[in-house]
Amino acid sequence: MSTFGTAFRVTTYGESHCASVGAIIDGCPPGLELSPQDIQTQLSRRRPGQSDLTTPRNEKDMVHVQSGVEMGVTLGTPIGLLVKNEDQRPHDYTETDLYPRPSHADYTYLEKYGIKASSGGGRSSARETIGRVAAGAIAEKYLKIAYGIEIVAFVSSVGKVHLPSTLAPPSLTPINDDENDDNVEDALSKDFVHLLSSITREDVDKHLTRCPHKETSDRMTQRIMRAKEANDSIGGTVTCVIRNVPAGLGEPVFDKFEAKLAHAMLSIPATKAFEVGSGFRGTEVPGSRHNDKFVADASGRLRTVTNWSGGIQGGITNGENIYFRIGFKSPATISQAQETAQYDGTAGTLATRGRHDPCVVPRAVPIVEAMAAIVVMDQLLMQNARASAAKLLPPITTLPPTMVIPKKAL
Amino acid sequence: MSTFGTAFRVTTYGESHCASVGAIIDGCPPGLELSPQDIQTQLSRRRPGQSDLTTPRNEKDMVHVQSGVEMGVTLGTPIGLLVKNEDQRPHDYTETDLYPRPSHADYTYLEKYGIKASSGGGRSSARETIGRVAAGAIAEKYLKIAYGIEIVAFVSSVGKVHLPSTLAPPSLTPINDDENDDNVEDALSKDFVHLLSSITREDVDKHLTRCPHKETSDRMTQRIMRAKEANDSIGGTVTCVIRNVPAGLGEPVFDKFEAKLAHAMLSIPATKAFEVGSGFRGTEVPGSRHNDKFVADASGRLRTVTNWSGGIQGGITNGENIYFRIGFKSPATISQAQETAQYDGTAGTLATRGRHDPCVVPRAVPIVEAMAAIVVMDQLLMQNARASAAKLLPPITTLPPTMVIPKKAL
Amino acid sequence: MSTFGTAFRVTTYGESHCASVGAIIDGCPPGLELSPQDIQTQLSRRRPGQSDLTTPRNEKDMVHVQSGVEMGVTLGTPIGLLVKNEDQRPHDYTETDLYPRPSHADYTYLEKYGIKASSGGGRSSARETIGRVAAGAIAEKYLKIAYGIEIVAFVSSVGKVHLPSTLAPPSLTPINDDENDDNVEDALSKDFVHLLSSITREDVDKHLTRCPHKETSDRMTQRIMRAKEANDSIGGTVTCVIRNVPAGLGEPVFDKFEAKLAHAMLSIPATKAFEVGSGFRGTEVPGSRHNDKFVADASGRLRTVTNWSGGIQGGITNGENIYFRIGFKSPATISQAQETAQYDGTAGTLATRGRHDPCVVPRAVPIVEAMAAIVVMDQLLMQNARASAAKLLPPITTLPPTMVIPKKAL
Amino acid sequence: MSTFGTAFRVTTYGESHCASVGAIIDGCPPGLELSPQDIQTQLSRRRPGQSDLTTPRNEKDMVHVQSGVEMGVTLGTPIGLLVKNEDQRPHDYTETDLYPRPSHADYTYLEKYGIKASSGGGRSSARETIGRVAAGAIAEKYLKIAYGIEIVAFVSSVGKVHLPSTLAPPSLTPINDDENDDNVEDALSKDFVHLLSSITREDVDKHLTRCPHKETSDRMTQRIMRAKEANDSIGGTVTCVIRNVPAGLGEPVFDKFEAKLAHAMLSIPATKAFEVGSGFRGTEVPGSRHNDKFVADASGRLRTVTNWSGGIQGGITNGENIYFRIGFKSPATISQAQETAQYDGTAGTLATRGRHDPCVVPRAVPIVEAMAAIVVMDQLLMQNARASAAKLLPPITTLPPTMVIPKKAL
Repeated sequence: MSTFGTAFRVTTYGESHCASVGAIIDGCPPGLELSPQDIQTQLSRRRPGQSDLTTPRNEKDMVHVQSGVEMGVTLGTPIGLLVKNEDQRPHDYTETDLYPRPSHADYTYLEKYGIKASSGGGRSSARETIGRVAAGAIAEKYLKIAYGIEIVAFVSSVGKVHLPSTLAPPSLTPINDDENDDNVEDALSKDFVHLLSSITREDVDKHLTRCPHKETSDRMTQRIMRAKEANDSIGGTVTCVIRNVPAGLGEPVFDKFEAKLAHAMLSIPATKAFEVGSGFRGTEVPGSRHNDKFVADASGRLRTVTNWSGGIQGGITNGENIYFRIGFKSPATISQAQETAQYDGTAGTLATRGRHDPCVVPRAVPIVEAMAAIVVMDQLLMQNARASAAKLLPPITTLPPTMVIPKKAL
Repeated sequence: MSTFGTAFRVTTYGESHCASVGAIIDGCPPGLELSPQDIQTQLSRRRPGQSDLTTPRNEKDMVHVQSGVEMGVTLGTPIGLLVKNEDQRPHDYTETDLYPRPSHADYTYLEKYGIKASSGGGRSSARETIGRVAAGAIAEKYLKIAYGIEIVAFVSSVGKVHLPSTLAPPSLTPINDDENDDNVEDALSKDFVHLLSSITREDVDKHLTRCPHKETSDRMTQRIMRAKEANDSIGGTVTCVIRNVPAGLGEPVFDKFEAKLAHAMLSIPATKAFEVGSGFRGTEVPGSRHNDKFVADASGRLRTVTNWSGGIQGGITNGENIYFRIGFKSPATISQAQETAQYDGTAGTLATRGRHDPCVVPRAVPIVEAMAAIVVMDQLLMQNARASAAKLLPPITTLPPTMVIPKKAL
Repeated sequence: MSTFGTAFRVTTYGESHCASVGAIIDGCPPGLELSPQDIQTQLSRRRPGQSDLTTPRNEKDMVHVQSGVEMGVTLGTPIGLLVKNEDQRPHDYTETDLYPRPSHADYTYLEKYGIKASSGGGRSSARETIGRVAAGAIAEKYLKIAYGIEIVAFVSSVGKVHLPSTLAPPSLTPINDDENDDNVEDALSKDFVHLLSSITREDVDKHLTRCPHKETSDRMTQRIMRAKEANDSIGGTVTCVIRNVPAGLGEPVFDKFEAKLAHAMLSIPATKAFEVGSGFRGTEVPGSRHNDKFVADASGRLRTVTNWSGGIQGGITNGENIYFRIGFKSPATISQAQETAQYDGTAGTLATRGRHDPCVVPRAVPIVEAMAAIVVMDQLLMQNARASAAKLLPPITTLPPTMVIPKKAL
Repeated sequence: MSTFGTAFRVTTYGESHCASVGAIIDGCPPGLELSPQDIQTQLSRRRPGQSDLTTPRNEKDMVHVQSGVEMGVTLGTPIGLLVKNEDQRPHDYTETDLYPRPSHADYTYLEKYGIKASSGGGRSSARETIGRVAAGAIAEKYLKIAYGIEIVAFVSSVGKVHLPSTLAPPSLTPINDDENDDNVEDALSKDFVHLLSSITREDVDKHLTRCPHKETSDRMTQRIMRAKEANDSIGGTVTCVIRNVPAGLGEPVFDKFEAKLAHAMLSIPATKAFEVGSGFRGTEVPGSRHNDKFVADASGRLRTVTNWSGGIQGGITNGENIYFRIGFKSPATISQAQETAQYDGTAGTLATRGRHDPCVVPRAVPIVEAMAAIVVMDQLLMQNARASAAKLLPPITTLPPTMVIPKKAL
């Protein structure tokens, strides 16, 4: 339904053309300095009308905090917030009324609810994500201050234009296709690993595409403009890294860290695919190469030599960088005429006008970051609950060495 | 944590070497004929020791139903069930005690809990999935009887050996890599679409690999045996189709059908990737081609001409076949010596003995089917809750044609 | 936390003096005619400033629906709504700043969150209940239309002034205190049973006290005015009946109907006690008298001769009237000087000024009704989920007569 | 449904006559020493056949821990446990098959599920509480070690026999019934307050009735034996105190500490009423007397002079003793003939044989303690989650004195 999270809970409301969209964020730690600008920054990265690459629908998307914050500090109580829908123009969509738009949610919402919102695609609207971005910004503020956690997402491909293989996630790296040759080590490129460790939002925002590599970004821009000019659309992928997450987050067995991440990411409109760490490529790399061997760092802490695991092992974070990739399909809303059927089955031609994104991935970047922040925050609080309880117990003296030696070592 | 689902809830317990593993399945409709054999069939497809391709650890995995079923009929109350751990051999693992096994859960569980189960990998053990498979078998029985829903998973690749492109999911289909050429229509092969509509579990079980294409299966067998002989391991992908799911399932916005599917699948041990419908390939296909146009079938019901969406639009099922693919990494447990570090940081060589699967995907097939069944069942019950409530309301007569015409058409 | 319900979920936000209070109501059936006035009516019954008996704090409490409703009809998507805090006057409370108000939430909120909202009692404010009342009004509208369910609460006592024993719930009925005499049958008065079956909100609202018995109401008014004049406060009880609830609602074992009711009622500020049906009095009546024997009505449907059970047996509704009683303590906020300690332990005298209710029960009536409606709605949807699923199963032919005879009889 | 709790989750299964009853306890802190005996002690206090006062149904109720504990220490993973149903005797109940037993769950379960378990009352059986008692024993072990929390329940009344007013909870204390006389201070008796602070389980178990006052206990025994001899039954109340709970537990607004307590207690079979602190009596005491004024103790910590609040203010614990009282109705199962109707409406006489408790309150004592422990544990973990997160934030320097003075004072 419209609530996500257990200890850090986000509930959103709002459709494309109603009075406002908003969210209630429950479980935020008290005592966090929080200004509207903390939230606005990410909302502005998400909002439409930022550039030629996005929809001309132009909304300021100003956040109004209703509760839970006083004198710029969170109270620990639910934070209510909303963004008004200023630019409703409900008549943009009237011509489509006889047709369920192909690959849009018109048909399925009608099947589900038996009633059709006159105003666009209801809850499947991208405007619904405003509440998530706001919630994520709050989570992120906490995570940064308390743990130094950094979350950076970037566009890794648009259509068939992708980052050079040295900078690409494992699954975008070409390998020899000889099924008897196991040599795929290059798939985890050192440059990519370095990119994960160093990339900042400033790097990402240097280019309108939010791809951090200029030459690729330029080709992506061309690809998007080609789609725009053809009244067509194109998809892409977003890669995201989360740095400095403490080890131990993630709840076996159903709420593994990657399972919650996948849930969160596939709940973003237009997503079709998710992979973490080595992803699909990891299915091709023999265990002997794919295993991330341990080594002690200068402080004696165990680290992994490689990071095929993407910072998660057995569903629990291991302290390494968490990285994952999400596939966004080409937007369903295009201005080309489409041969399709009306609700009553009559075949016809649907010609949609309106303001559409030819490609959503540049604007999806802050949404991915937000959902990542929400997942980390919720998992962190759940782990806190148990770990802080365990700390109060006396040490166990009766366990066999095989169960305590490791503990002593720490 | 260890509970999944809202109206159909599965809670599991058990580690690799404790007395038993089991589950409580809450929310099963009453009046369903259910025999232990209904559950046993899928448990036996999951159990180790089925063939040379799997671990020699041999457990009969007999299910013992404790409650919720009387005279072979479900009561609507929680179904408790368990499978005893007959073959514990806890000493198999003692040599590893000083080492966290690379890419296994030893290190992260210790970081999470501060205590290390002496017996194998704790809850990250594949034995934990027994409870899920049992729960899934119950859901599946209901779904088959009440809706004719069929769920069939199969192995689509092992390492770099994959189904021929005509039978492969979109992302496994080669396309030209000219980023200016949008022609990728072949990616959704007619043979693959036909395979989704027709494949049965009998087809799948004809080959030990659970790949339904003999020539590919033979090559997969060779690939797995090569890993086994090298004391190594290899990953693979499982593709799954769900047929005859009614339109309207899936809860906007966080519990979209694909979001719950992704959550469920990424909660299976060793998974690293998930894609639904066109998946990552769908990021490369322009919207004009990717959109699934509607057409009325003989009965006047709207169907889609293509099915890039994988049966889900806007997070809600549209009645078409739901298909998705999951990537399983190469198993972390291998018998090769590995240069790695002990818990205390000392570098050394870990040589693991024990009984391991060189490749998990053949045995993962019933687990994927089970988690799929659980997701469908839960979403179905949640939709039932609201839809049956809505049916009791009188028709609305005051709505504008744009909101009611579609309804009349149905 | 701030969310209640599983299939019908209410999430609220807002403190006493922030920008607004509001709620997101998720899971409302689509196709329900809903106007702001449907909500406003109950909000106005709750709002302060209605009469001399309540706080002079005067707020119009106009509801603003943000989403989920279009053209006066629910869409099935979350209904966001808010009520602005027009009359904030934050300085009313400044003199109390050094003191935690006795029996108020000041101290415990500070202990919990480590930070103190400058504005009144934070989430413990009665204004928080606005979101609940709005949510309840929506649930109630559905329940009335679809099932003819009626929910009426009324004031059954103020201080020691209570309804005459013929109209009082069992626990307010005097019995002989001879522990060897089991005769307590009169405790379930026929007049009370008739009152439950016939009382309407119009009856309740005839008197400002919301006690439906004029003579008692007059004495209650005197009692409240006496408290008001003494700068003191007084508590009371609210009794509520829910009529026409179908049999079969309530989820064994933790979510029994009465358990959810108790949870809902004890979540209302200032509540200290709850009893359903015979309540505490039921502990004194021998089973042979307390048991509600069955009898067939004209249509052959089983009814109970008495209704000590309060319409719930084994945690599940049986179709009879559900009735329960809630105790509200005397309000903690009084204008009398109180000898107490400051936060730092210094003993002193706290003299609070401000606008307070000398007695909350008249205004609590719509809050009780709202929480009751929310519980019924949630339980109804959960039962719908399973029952509509069970309907699709074929009849079982193999069961022994002891399991099927009853079913045939229905 | 059959799961309770958010961070500490208990899920139970099992009916009266199935193979076993059991539970999965998820969220137990790791590193807790736990032996089967820790659980068995409370199970044995709950089991039938303890004395003449209880059912002769005699079951040893030996617990079998299945998972989550190794070498006597909890792993942090789900603890699966079960108790076999050794004494099933399913034929005891066959004569009742045509009749729904009055005030039992037969009728409502049939209405709910459309199928009738041949074996007794299904999930409404008292045997279902075995899983809860086991879960509570685990929670209690932790709470005792980590916080010194003590939970003691005792029988405060049987029928009209109750503790002397000096030892009775406020609502059992007689007051003058002059509605113009506010003097009710004696209602919170010093002896009762002392009893709450000092009573132990040893005190409680000195008498078979589990009433700690010998003379009252003797009269209770007579009252129960009188019911037994008359083939009748009688109810009673259980009072419970929880000592040493830290301040700050309880989640505004729906999950207030008392709301969760009420939910937990009303989920116990046969309960009809709940009151916390002053309870219903608190509705009669003017605020000026009812308010718990603050005073600093020797260490400077704020305590309350009185404790009408029962240790909870604004839904959050304040560190004082938490006490509450639960009403259990007279058991529905009696051996007297009852004039009632069959399922098909035929009037007749039902004569039940079988083994029944004439009064459940002595055996209810450990169940109440268990549910109390589960509530405290869950609320503690949820508060831990947030509080430990807040601790990592830097102190806020920009807040006005009204928000920070209190914090400094601590």
